Amino acid sequence: MIKFSEIGKAVTGFESVEGVPLQGYGISESCGKIEIFQDYAEGLQDIEGFSHIYLLFHLHRSRGHNLKVKPFLDTQERGVFATRSPKRPNPLGLSIVQLERREGNILHVRGLDLLNGTPIIDVKPYIQAFDNIQGTRDGWYLQGMNPHQTLSDERFK
Amino acid sequence: MIKFSEIGKAVTGFESVEGVPLQGYGISESCGKIEIFQDYAEGLQDIEGFSHIYLLFHLHRSRGHNLKVKPFLDTQERGVFATRSPKRPNPLGLSIVQLERREGNILHVRGLDLLNGTPIIDVKPYIQAFDNIQGTRDGWYLQGMNPHQTLSDERFK
Repeated sequence: MIKFSEIGKAVTGFESVEGVPLQGYGISESCGKIEIFQDYAEGLQDIEGFSHIYLLFHLHRSRGHNLKVKPFLDTQERGVFATRSPKRPNPLGLSIVQLERREGNILHVRGLDLLNGTPIIDVKPYIQAFDNIQGTRDGWYLQGMNPHQTLSDERFK
Repeated sequence: MIKFSEIGKAVTGFESVEGVPLQGYGISESCGKIEIFQDYAEGLQDIEGFSHIYLLFHLHRSRGHNLKVKPFLDTQERGVFATRSPKRPNPLGLSIVQLERREGNILHVRGLDLLNGTPIIDVKPYIQAFDNIQGTRDGWYLQGMNPHQTLSDERFK
């Protein structure tokens, strides 16, 4: 058993599992805040130098998991590890958001797709040299589909 | 307290904290395997369609944390959340690796920077539309420095 603690929480306008935008990046209107608890605030120094950050968070409203899931953006079942479905064996979420500014222990971000109150586990900088991978092969994921015009439904409730 | 379970483990040639390449991607020779336990193997279906995947893992050899750290690639102290240092409040690691092939419950990957035996928490597909962010501002991280010729030292032991 691996134990992590909540280091902060998301402050967003999304109160229910339905209607949350899929993957925040690109949804420029979806702004929100990440509040890092005071005990950890010192660790945020210098983060404002990065335009984008990873949020790692607890999918706290996810209950149970399936090894096969039908993704929002697909019509057939896929192995859960080949999807970004929230009903995972370990309900650990990953999002990349744009960091607009830091105000003490508060990160103002853009492209946030988290439910209000989501527990934050970690924050990491997005670094081109490590994270920007060119020319990937993206499996079942259809490039023609626009995730930024798709909203979640209730299937992962 | 957030509890996760190990879903698999890394099989690599790195037995000690010193000398591990920094961030696997790009270190094309650094191959290894991710063994997903049989209970979760069904969840790997379709992952072979993706050329790159995220590994989320427990930095199981990391002890304690500092809110300020001197990154391997820098000369001054930075807030830990503005770095990829392993000594984080929650020792949760993130790497992007190239998936060469799947053999049942075994993922053969390239660009692996994990210690042998590292517990795997989650695997997710890398999807261009979500994860390839262009033109980011990368804070203190010096583009001129080559992380792929830099090895870790003992400072995070």
